[in-house]
Amino acid sequence: MSKPVCYSTKAYSTPSASSKLGATMIERRQPTPTDVQIQILYCGVCHSDLHYARNEWHFTQYPAVPGHEIVGRVTATGSGVQKFKVGDTVGVGCLVDSCRTCPNCRSGLEQYCNAGMAGGTYGGTEKHLGSPTLGGYSQSIVVTEDFVLRIPANLNLAAAAPLLCAGITTYSPMRHWKVGPGQKVGIVGLGGLGHMAVKFAKAFGAHVVLFTTSPGKVADAKRLGAHEVVVSTDEKQMAAQTGSFDFILDAVSAAHDLNAYFNLLKRDGNLTLVGAPEKPLPVAAFPLIMRRRSFSGSLIGGLPETQEMLDFCGQHNITSDIEMIRMDQINDAYERMLKSDVKYRFVIDMASLT
Amino acid sequence: MSKPVCYSTKAYSTPSASSKLGATMIERRQPTPTDVQIQILYCGVCHSDLHYARNEWHFTQYPAVPGHEIVGRVTATGSGVQKFKVGDTVGVGCLVDSCRTCPNCRSGLEQYCNAGMAGGTYGGTEKHLGSPTLGGYSQSIVVTEDFVLRIPANLNLAAAAPLLCAGITTYSPMRHWKVGPGQKVGIVGLGGLGHMAVKFAKAFGAHVVLFTTSPGKVADAKRLGAHEVVVSTDEKQMAAQTGSFDFILDAVSAAHDLNAYFNLLKRDGNLTLVGAPEKPLPVAAFPLIMRRRSFSGSLIGGLPETQEMLDFCGQHNITSDIEMIRMDQINDAYERMLKSDVKYRFVIDMASLT
Repeated sequence: MSKPVCYSTKAYSTPSASSKLGATMIERRQPTPTDVQIQILYCGVCHSDLHYARNEWHFTQYPAVPGHEIVGRVTATGSGVQKFKVGDTVGVGCLVDSCRTCPNCRSGLEQYCNAGMAGGTYGGTEKHLGSPTLGGYSQSIVVTEDFVLRIPANLNLAAAAPLLCAGITTYSPMRHWKVGPGQKVGIVGLGGLGHMAVKFAKAFGAHVVLFTTSPGKVADAKRLGAHEVVVSTDEKQMAAQTGSFDFILDAVSAAHDLNAYFNLLKRDGNLTLVGAPEKPLPVAAFPLIMRRRSFSGSLIGGLPETQEMLDFCGQHNITSDIEMIRMDQINDAYERMLKSDVKYRFVIDMASLT
Repeated sequence: MSKPVCYSTKAYSTPSASSKLGATMIERRQPTPTDVQIQILYCGVCHSDLHYARNEWHFTQYPAVPGHEIVGRVTATGSGVQKFKVGDTVGVGCLVDSCRTCPNCRSGLEQYCNAGMAGGTYGGTEKHLGSPTLGGYSQSIVVTEDFVLRIPANLNLAAAAPLLCAGITTYSPMRHWKVGPGQKVGIVGLGGLGHMAVKFAKAFGAHVVLFTTSPGKVADAKRLGAHEVVVSTDEKQMAAQTGSFDFILDAVSAAHDLNAYFNLLKRDGNLTLVGAPEKPLPVAAFPLIMRRRSFSGSLIGGLPETQEMLDFCGQHNITSDIEMIRMDQINDAYERMLKSDVKYRFVIDMASLT
């Protein structure tokens, strides 16, 4: 495979873990026969972007360009592209490729590719160029058509961007564990992930209970669709929920007491963690043993399910609650994100980068 | 309900956490219309017996009579008993009753009764007498017929006793997680529970890998049916198994590194813990998140499944590997059990108590 010709496009990148992000030019490959070139209109700001920019997961390759909640318009297609044409409104999430041959990829679960996350939208490997992949904080991106998603026409494009990560991360485990009518579902944490989880759980027909440490979030959780809100620091409120949940989605990345939540599950209930606390969390055996409860993790979603989620959002008119920022506000946005000072997702208006 | 008349029977009990067990007389109720009276022939020695005798779970009621792997012969039946007659060979496990009305009891999962373990064979509450239940280290016991099990005629009675706890504890989670042909199944720990798990996993048609810290147990694990044995302290041996297991049953009660085992599971693989480590174990989020793995607990089994397990053992000629002891050897047996010096279950010949 010969290296494709490249073109330059404007982006926001950082040269080191301690630097701020700033404007730069990056190289993208010209579309190969199976590629789609996309003008990026909006890019959501995920907490992973910050972890990656600051090398908190210890695999960042600099200069780094974060961003994996990408929405844009097709500007060119390779000669062999079948599914997209110039002008289409499309999305790109956390993956731009995978090995495509392992059992997980062949099952449409590319997020669990046995080759690892080499196909990550940033921090992966650009197969054609042999260089690190560069994310969505840029004016354009080139992606193989199999990893490009269709955005339903009725959705607000900016508010749809966070569906590509925050949306699928919460949609996928609830589908996997069959959340539906007649079930009582808990959501732990009301942030970018949690607020999407509340919307999905409600749309799936479940009775939704939001757990938060912040009494100030009660009203907003109800506005978003929660039927009940439990302030998790209140032991009485917690005890009143013992043994009553079919499923709990835990979207908290900070260290917290999981055992208190296991006790809230029914027999055979499951708690799935989608936040990724840095250090191992203490898990007591008895709450799991005494009711055959289970504790799982879940990672974004595969391509087929991500499209299914977008179509579901189109049908149910679900998008993220967002705060729009200019590209040059990204460093401030990171600081505000660290203080949870965002309702509920920053989205970069990429026109501001021109 | 008036208190039934009682009779005396010989037993082995302890008056306090620091005392040895010794012979004593205890009171049992005379059979009510729905009761079965059983002459106890053999009683297995479970690690729980020791925990209970020494109040290590902080709920022991003294004087305490342990024992919940009971096999014996029916000596009398109440007027309304339908399923058993005098002379039948029967078993009693960890439960002698439950609330019978909660959703778990109505589903035949009495071990997860929402009223808790009030129906425990020891340490529960004797509904008729209002006193603590007393276990199988005794000459006879009276149990409501719904909690009495039938022992297949072809099984060695002494070797069948451990099926009532060690057997069902390992059988139930493997059935729940659908262990079967074509699957690779890991068993962690080769003790009373682990050696039964190896036998069941093999009988279910799985490829069985036994994990042990003791190189000395390799040959015996293979004799018991393991296709492979991994010495878990050998990092190379462990790494060679990464991502290859459908299911792992963890039968270790001591503190140990669960995360090393999570990494051995395939996508959607499950590790079920049936040992009950005293303190919470550190669980890292990433091994669960990266392959949607799950971590569960499981507690013995309900009455219908315990009968199913016994019938399965009859069909496949499965019993426990045991070392028979006299009742007056129980204190020494506890000390040896603490050193894992038993292959693989002590069973008391209750004739030695006469």
